[in-house]
Amino acid sequence: MKTNKLCIIRLSKYKNALYRLKSLGFVRVFSDNLADAVEATASQVRKDFSIFGISGNKRGGYKIDELIEKLNIILGKDELQKVIIVGLGKLGTALSRYTGFEKEEIKIVAAFDIDSTKFNQTDIKMIKLNEKTPVLALEYLPEFVRKNNIKIGIITVPDIAAQQVVDIMLSSGIKGILNFAPIRLRGNDDCIINNVNLEGELENLIYFVNASTKTKGK
Amino acid sequence: MKTNKLCIIRLSKYKNALYRLKSLGFVRVFSDNLADAVEATASQVRKDFSIFGISGNKRGGYKIDELIEKLNIILGKDELQKVIIVGLGKLGTALSRYTGFEKEEIKIVAAFDIDSTKFNQTDIKMIKLNEKTPVLALEYLPEFVRKNNIKIGIITVPDIAAQQVVDIMLSSGIKGILNFAPIRLRGNDDCIINNVNLEGELENLIYFVNASTKTKGK
Repeated sequence: MKTNKLCIIRLSKYKNALYRLKSLGFVRVFSDNLADAVEATASQVRKDFSIFGISGNKRGGYKIDELIEKLNIILGKDELQKVIIVGLGKLGTALSRYTGFEKEEIKIVAAFDIDSTKFNQTDIKMIKLNEKTPVLALEYLPEFVRKNNIKIGIITVPDIAAQQVVDIMLSSGIKGILNFAPIRLRGNDDCIINNVNLEGELENLIYFVNASTKTKGK
Repeated sequence: MKTNKLCIIRLSKYKNALYRLKSLGFVRVFSDNLADAVEATASQVRKDFSIFGISGNKRGGYKIDELIEKLNIILGKDELQKVIIVGLGKLGTALSRYTGFEKEEIKIVAAFDIDSTKFNQTDIKMIKLNEKTPVLALEYLPEFVRKNNIKIGIITVPDIAAQQVVDIMLSSGIKGILNFAPIRLRGNDDCIINNVNLEGELENLIYFVNASTKTKGK
């Protein structure tokens, strides 16, 4: 599982690197090029590809267009991925408006909160998925998720509310959760949870910067 | 370095778990409790603490208040950490307004962009650091960073602009960078770079959700 996750993360990175190479006019790429781009070894690149039946050849390498197409299929980018978000604080609001996901075929189709001043939709029947992100009461989440066959949820609620939201998501059929609440949430056999801790990332940087600029005691 | 980074990430997690325990009325904590909270082993917890000279005792465990205080000092939270951000697209704007950092003693003191329609300050001399986040032309970054002794920067520019921003930050004296651009940036001996790839995290979830809900080919 651990290895698999890292492998899939590398596939995402290969894909991004390939788009950049393509935009620079390149047509072919070698495993060494991709290794440089994602800080892996060339043999790791070939191994990752071989898991998914992708092979190049020593002379010609890989054709960038073909490789992008194959990676997109593996990464589920051949179809639009519908995602919901729970918790419309600052970060949740920002992510629900963030258009960077759309070029990756990821669309946040609805947002949920418990604060009624944030709702712009009071009736779940009124929602059309091609309009701007509707904000709904959290109680509508199970119905919305089932009706629209949503599998992925983002959590941006305070830490004390996070586990409750996970429970609601799990019982509604959500299979993958990206958690921004500053608490480590655990998945189970039915659901994978990836935790992103922005404050933690900054704290980490601050520690190493402080450690390098002044001598710390133990 | 790798181990150290993971150790510091765990310290952040211990600290968050301790605040939660404290808010529930707990006074003491044992390494087993903390191990559960951050998915480590109890011996790992004790080892992490012993690196920084923190010891508990078998009977009484650790006093939560004391432990929080020690961890905050190690993590540099005994003083306000000033951070700048470059790139005021959707994500950058969101992060520059995100108040979640402030409870962690992290403050985004200025934002920089190259789009003049986004500036709300045209003169670097006018800036007072206790007002709301000023937005400045990127060309003022070096002067601002030096004058205010800023060591940490956040990058939220498009991938093609990211390396250029890194170069400007490095030459201005920035020592730690949190990068949200979808390209892997490398640090050097003078500067540590942590990469956060939001699209990549979602892609990763989508892959595993798809793999578990339908049988994928190889």
